[in-house]
Amino acid sequence: MAAPWAHRYAQRTKTAKSSIIRELLKLTQRPEVISFAGGLPAPEVFPVARFQEACHRVLQTQASTALQYGPTEGYRPLRELIVAHMARYGILASVDNVLVTSGSQQALDLIAKLLINRGDRILVECPTYVGALQAFDLMGAEYVTVPIDDKGLQTCEMEQALRSGPKFMYILPNFQNPGGVTLSRERRDQLVSLSDKYGIPIVEDDPYGQLRYEGEHVSPLVVLDRTNLARDDGYKLGNVIYLSTFSKVLAPGLRVAWIVAPPDVIVRLSQLKQSTDLHTSTFTQMVVYEAARDGFIDEHVKLIRKVYKERRDAMLEALHDFFPPEVSWTRPQGGLFLWVTMPPGIDTRRLLDVALRQDVAFVPGDAFYPASGDPGSHMRLNFSNAQPEMIREGIRRLSIAVAHELEHRAAAVMV
Amino acid sequence: MAAPWAHRYAQRTKTAKSSIIRELLKLTQRPEVISFAGGLPAPEVFPVARFQEACHRVLQTQASTALQYGPTEGYRPLRELIVAHMARYGILASVDNVLVTSGSQQALDLIAKLLINRGDRILVECPTYVGALQAFDLMGAEYVTVPIDDKGLQTCEMEQALRSGPKFMYILPNFQNPGGVTLSRERRDQLVSLSDKYGIPIVEDDPYGQLRYEGEHVSPLVVLDRTNLARDDGYKLGNVIYLSTFSKVLAPGLRVAWIVAPPDVIVRLSQLKQSTDLHTSTFTQMVVYEAARDGFIDEHVKLIRKVYKERRDAMLEALHDFFPPEVSWTRPQGGLFLWVTMPPGIDTRRLLDVALRQDVAFVPGDAFYPASGDPGSHMRLNFSNAQPEMIREGIRRLSIAVAHELEHRAAAVMV
Repeated sequence: MAAPWAHRYAQRTKTAKSSIIRELLKLTQRPEVISFAGGLPAPEVFPVARFQEACHRVLQTQASTALQYGPTEGYRPLRELIVAHMARYGILASVDNVLVTSGSQQALDLIAKLLINRGDRILVECPTYVGALQAFDLMGAEYVTVPIDDKGLQTCEMEQALRSGPKFMYILPNFQNPGGVTLSRERRDQLVSLSDKYGIPIVEDDPYGQLRYEGEHVSPLVVLDRTNLARDDGYKLGNVIYLSTFSKVLAPGLRVAWIVAPPDVIVRLSQLKQSTDLHTSTFTQMVVYEAARDGFIDEHVKLIRKVYKERRDAMLEALHDFFPPEVSWTRPQGGLFLWVTMPPGIDTRRLLDVALRQDVAFVPGDAFYPASGDPGSHMRLNFSNAQPEMIREGIRRLSIAVAHELEHRAAAVMV
Repeated sequence: MAAPWAHRYAQRTKTAKSSIIRELLKLTQRPEVISFAGGLPAPEVFPVARFQEACHRVLQTQASTALQYGPTEGYRPLRELIVAHMARYGILASVDNVLVTSGSQQALDLIAKLLINRGDRILVECPTYVGALQAFDLMGAEYVTVPIDDKGLQTCEMEQALRSGPKFMYILPNFQNPGGVTLSRERRDQLVSLSDKYGIPIVEDDPYGQLRYEGEHVSPLVVLDRTNLARDDGYKLGNVIYLSTFSKVLAPGLRVAWIVAPPDVIVRLSQLKQSTDLHTSTFTQMVVYEAARDGFIDEHVKLIRKVYKERRDAMLEALHDFFPPEVSWTRPQGGLFLWVTMPPGIDTRRLLDVALRQDVAFVPGDAFYPASGDPGSHMRLNFSNAQPEMIREGIRRLSIAVAHELEHRAAAVMV
């Protein structure tokens, strides 16, 4: 019997699709599967004792605030902590520039609600974060794409894209998801100049900025933005909305992230958040505040960097040892992912089926492109969630699947 | 200097307005103000020790799950607990019928995204919950309204409204917000018959169902729905989507609520939730599960009912003692609110200014009507958040403001 609701679904749901990544998460919960598919932090680095203490202290001393409704903008001491935390990376903001969100995914939902009319074009890197495409799709976005290379977004390719009048640019400058590449300082300067010249604002998504394993920190776009630097009227921040999160430096299960934007944009985003979920859990905000305070995060990320660097190195070494020479990959300086490019003609959805039979998983590249799909043959590999020896074993298994598909392709060509 | 972003805001934000209730919450945080404005539970009934234990147990035994990303549909043991909890109220559902949400406000956002195309008409009670209007407005809803009286929605007024083809009806049958009235059993039967006859589905919002202080429990619409009862194909639930929450029976600060709907609707709502916030905090879901299990809620609501009944009675008594005879009010059998009707011509926004000078607050009625505003002169009073003696004092102060405005009106009429 047909569902009585289906014919009532709104137009916008026609483009809503389940993320292959979240579907894969279910498939890969079999314990024998080594999964490079998710973007999961390592549970070994969750600061459990610190959270125990934080929960105890919050409920002991401030339960009637922590368990009650709270302000939509967020728990004020947490917003102050975020301001102080960002100042260390050169981002000069005040509490009025900060909105606490229920994870960065909610930040993308709110930004889409605020800025996207059906049919608006959004400039995105190609490939880009699948969750952003989902949030933008739902408000009816279309896309202008600019490719990335080892230095990030190819700014030399941008003028034509900007002339088509995109509503904003969505950019992941550090350890890009899925590419793993980092936008060079030179290109960041070019990007903020172009933003200023064409009057096209930037949404800068920076979930991994602190997770750098080698090389020098590069200033965020929100710091380099000239429209910000040029102002002397006390109006803070200019053409860039900046997003970051506690998910990768503390734990994702609490769903606490934030948006930095000019105060009038924060007011509008807060109004939208009211109708979206009233506010982020007061309790988790206060627990994050207690856990993060007194410089804990800066200490804790040293441990995370050490653990993830080992895992990145294990994956790079295993790829070098097991993968055939016609396959290449990026060498990320930080973050959680690397991006593998195979010879053209490999169907990575088919490859995934073969890999799953070997009990190893990855995300096929086409998830990370707007509707047109993957123009090449790519896979995204996550290296944060498995121990180094499991990473080596997983890459060995995956190399068998890759070899199988390369043979299949060769056979097809011969036929 | 003008904000560089304002001219980029999407069409839908033009209707987005800050809820007067949340703005009032800020104003009324002065400790000397007695506020009847919020819908805040009493912090005295938060089960703090139970939450302490729950946090400890979750982090002691399951930290790597609790702090990690989780499934969009929700933590499975919590979904099972919700199914068992609802069965005691006659709602027969399975886990596939349940989606955990970040508060009921998110349920309204997801339903709006799923069902509302710009210009669709939604049938709402008049007055109705302001948060629903905000969520529906954002997706471009228009409204058909049907008035309520002491027995709830006036079902005799509905046929004409239904003939205009609303997309769905949004109904609060128990202790309605803001009216405080409860839909009678007879009208519930009429309502589900009309829903079936016209093929117009119902969204049933039931945040307070367990908070009944007198009278008999009345079956929810989702139970009475004939399209559900008539089915024998194993496909569960029919024309009603049902919403409820842990906010009023445990604590709102955790932001955990749920949607009950046919499985295919749950699948679509889950896809929308993925792009909205990935999932509700794994940690708070597990803490709610640990706090709620083993029948704790049913024990705990006995305490809540006792405390809130005293407060309701204190407010009814004070209204009787202090308010002039030309003012009337509802006598709620449960929930958090009552609804006061004043003689025509009283401007309740002005009245609020006068009341705030007396250090007492309420919500003016026009917040609870679609764009056209309050056709009468109403105020919503919350009785759950203040102690009985403060309630009496607050109503005394409010009666001074009311008397002041009645005199002002009389003077204006004479001029």
